[in-house]
Amino acid sequence: MFYRSCGGSRRGQGEARVLEALRTEVLEANLELVRRGLVIYTFGNASGIDRERGLVAIKPSGVPYERMTPADIVITDLEGRIVEGKLRPSTDLDTHTALYRAFPGIGGVAHTHSRHATAWAQARVEIPCFGTTHADYFHGPVPVSEPLTPEEIEADYEANTGAAIIRRMQGRDPLACPAILVAGHAPFCWGKSVSDAAHTAVIVEELAAMAWQTLTINPQAAPISQALRDKHHFRKHGPAATYGQR
Amino acid sequence: MFYRSCGGSRRGQGEARVLEALRTEVLEANLELVRRGLVIYTFGNASGIDRERGLVAIKPSGVPYERMTPADIVITDLEGRIVEGKLRPSTDLDTHTALYRAFPGIGGVAHTHSRHATAWAQARVEIPCFGTTHADYFHGPVPVSEPLTPEEIEADYEANTGAAIIRRMQGRDPLACPAILVAGHAPFCWGKSVSDAAHTAVIVEELAAMAWQTLTINPQAAPISQALRDKHHFRKHGPAATYGQR
Amino acid sequence: MFYRSCGGSRRGQGEARVLEALRTEVLEANLELVRRGLVIYTFGNASGIDRERGLVAIKPSGVPYERMTPADIVITDLEGRIVEGKLRPSTDLDTHTALYRAFPGIGGVAHTHSRHATAWAQARVEIPCFGTTHADYFHGPVPVSEPLTPEEIEADYEANTGAAIIRRMQGRDPLACPAILVAGHAPFCWGKSVSDAAHTAVIVEELAAMAWQTLTINPQAAPISQALRDKHHFRKHGPAATYGQR
Amino acid sequence: MFYRSCGGSRRGQGEARVLEALRTEVLEANLELVRRGLVIYTFGNASGIDRERGLVAIKPSGVPYERMTPADIVITDLEGRIVEGKLRPSTDLDTHTALYRAFPGIGGVAHTHSRHATAWAQARVEIPCFGTTHADYFHGPVPVSEPLTPEEIEADYEANTGAAIIRRMQGRDPLACPAILVAGHAPFCWGKSVSDAAHTAVIVEELAAMAWQTLTINPQAAPISQALRDKHHFRKHGPAATYGQR
Repeated sequence: MFYRSCGGSRRGQGEARVLEALRTEVLEANLELVRRGLVIYTFGNASGIDRERGLVAIKPSGVPYERMTPADIVITDLEGRIVEGKLRPSTDLDTHTALYRAFPGIGGVAHTHSRHATAWAQARVEIPCFGTTHADYFHGPVPVSEPLTPEEIEADYEANTGAAIIRRMQGRDPLACPAILVAGHAPFCWGKSVSDAAHTAVIVEELAAMAWQTLTINPQAAPISQALRDKHHFRKHGPAATYGQR
Repeated sequence: MFYRSCGGSRRGQGEARVLEALRTEVLEANLELVRRGLVIYTFGNASGIDRERGLVAIKPSGVPYERMTPADIVITDLEGRIVEGKLRPSTDLDTHTALYRAFPGIGGVAHTHSRHATAWAQARVEIPCFGTTHADYFHGPVPVSEPLTPEEIEADYEANTGAAIIRRMQGRDPLACPAILVAGHAPFCWGKSVSDAAHTAVIVEELAAMAWQTLTINPQAAPISQALRDKHHFRKHGPAATYGQR
Repeated sequence: MFYRSCGGSRRGQGEARVLEALRTEVLEANLELVRRGLVIYTFGNASGIDRERGLVAIKPSGVPYERMTPADIVITDLEGRIVEGKLRPSTDLDTHTALYRAFPGIGGVAHTHSRHATAWAQARVEIPCFGTTHADYFHGPVPVSEPLTPEEIEADYEANTGAAIIRRMQGRDPLACPAILVAGHAPFCWGKSVSDAAHTAVIVEELAAMAWQTLTINPQAAPISQALRDKHHFRKHGPAATYGQR
Repeated sequence: MFYRSCGGSRRGQGEARVLEALRTEVLEANLELVRRGLVIYTFGNASGIDRERGLVAIKPSGVPYERMTPADIVITDLEGRIVEGKLRPSTDLDTHTALYRAFPGIGGVAHTHSRHATAWAQARVEIPCFGTTHADYFHGPVPVSEPLTPEEIEADYEANTGAAIIRRMQGRDPLACPAILVAGHAPFCWGKSVSDAAHTAVIVEELAAMAWQTLTINPQAAPISQALRDKHHFRKHGPAATYGQR
């Protein structure tokens, strides 16, 4: 692994403060996933990016949440090279950086194995847009990526997982479809910031639970109409939004 | 939006106290929905009405529950015009006011996207009266409204949602059927007061969970007999009620 | 309602102490149902009996659990006549007293509308003995009572509910089958004491949840063998029991 | 039962300290099962082994968790003979010791009746490897043991349960398949230490919940590919592992 050699001298106090704030926000988003019951033990990982500097802050691998401090958050560049931090980054780092390179509008990524969303990923079925709760966040179903080939799995597995997500997202606006289910694996979620990404992860878990029950109550349940989907999505997103305080 | 121009001068100390009490009760009912696990983030909204003055107190839009105070609760008239309050009211305000205008016996409305009830709304299946727990609150199934047309969705969506609820409730006593599932959306619940409305929302969530499991255990499960439905409903409601302390 | 006229003079300090202890145990068992998540609001009721005196202590009707004190627990005789207490007893009192009269070996009764057990009662399907967890408590399925006729519902509903339970229990040892599902209603549970009855209510809820999932995983799932049922049941009950500290 | 007669004189301070540490770890693992919601009342039992001395430390039978102290943990030899402790050991002791004798690489065993895993054991269906969460811990499905014959149940039931587990595990590496579902009963889990065994029990419960939902979403759901199973399993286990801090 390559370490940027002159990091110390090139970075001033301003940058140190910015990175400290990012590390704190990334830690907080990771802890939010614990508090909301989306991760157990050392499962899950969330990262945030400083777009100006091209630096990613990500959870370390396998460290218990209750002992994690901002200093444990690892800083890498967009190729995944460690810039700061004494710990090994999450094993899923290369998936995160692939998403940051492909989706310039996103500022954070959250990956969990939360129960209900993972069940849909394992079932390899996209989550249909069964209701307005879903449409408030997604302008369509939550898609499922294609399974990787044995070759894609054996070499560069994490980078290829990112590539599979990106292929499946082609033609979609990542902020109108802020999550995907990786087939046989679990959800990856994103947003304008790492807090937004963690928020999306909580929502996806709730949508997955509701959709599962919807299907068992009525196996013929149909997605809502395009008009209703548009109304709810654009009530919360875009220039005509009326939700919240402005 | 139109603001009643002479509110300040026309209202005295008595009215201020009454509205303050209503705001506090409305806040409390909204918080009850959080405590009971029916809403996450800024989901859901509950309102109460002062029938004498024709004033509605409703949750503001998109404000985190942990920071909400009585002063944040917005006061409007029965047409949804803001009378007091610095924040924007819930986007669902026009549905609430439509219900208050149509059902003179109700004093509060609660709307959530609680998991199990929303699953039934998404499945577009009414919740059958499978047991006495249900009959204690509803003298029949929890109905589902008709889906809106694209035209109803595009213009005056929230008011038209109210209209669809009212159409579906025709011929029913709103206090013997204190909730409805809006198709592809979620439940709206009501009661004599906003606390009652929040209580109903909790009950509907529980009934929805039980009915879902009832159906998966026995897809041929049938509603209880009319005699049993009457006995439980009228043990708790109306002149012959024997439940509780009197 | 008839009040025993000379209660004050006939009862001495010894009896007062015994009843106070029973009231406290009954309150505690009712609160245990709340703590274990089996009841919400004022749902559910548990009672205990002093066999020597023929006195039943039962939860009052519709009183919030957080305000309940031992003094609120109502004392009645075996015919349901109030002996002590200022509040109205649970509306289900006549079901409790019917069980006490029919099953001399039991010392407590607990009735809840807990989610999973109620779903089976609503589905009108007995809970099969799918595993050793079940056999540890029940020497066979958890039975379902026959639905009441309209006549049985209209007059003496609660007493007739007791009668239907007793009819269905004929030929069974109440302590080897310490609960029943009342069709279209919910479980009634019992035990040697009111604490045991509340314990059984918690177990029945757990067995109901497990059995529901067992059936959805394998619709052809079969009860365990008689040998395994006997082994587990008699490891915990009867003269050959080896479980626990003796 | 046979008590090792000269325990006191043969054991020195060093051994006393080691056993005290083991008892504390065993207690802690048992309490972890309670905290994670895997056991209620006195359900479940976990044990650890001191391989050097051939001594097993196990939870006592039927003692409430809230009162349990390290001194209550019972020490036995590998044949289940009590070496130290005033209480009776868990009734499942003979299953634990059978596993310790058969699998020399394990250091702890945890047995629960946790809801979702027990449902699969009752359904007598092995939990397929539907996803990477599963593959992170199991290199294949979670197997189900064969039902015992009436003869095996009647005599030496607990030892025969151990024998049935061992038969079903033949040809598998116990650390690549650290749990089994005993048919009609519940899971037994193990690991390098008693803490690992309790950790596995939590994971098995989560995998069981996810797999149940996977199947109800898609009854034709298939296990993940061997390549993906290998990748995730060996990312966490064995010489090529990259997960965590090293």
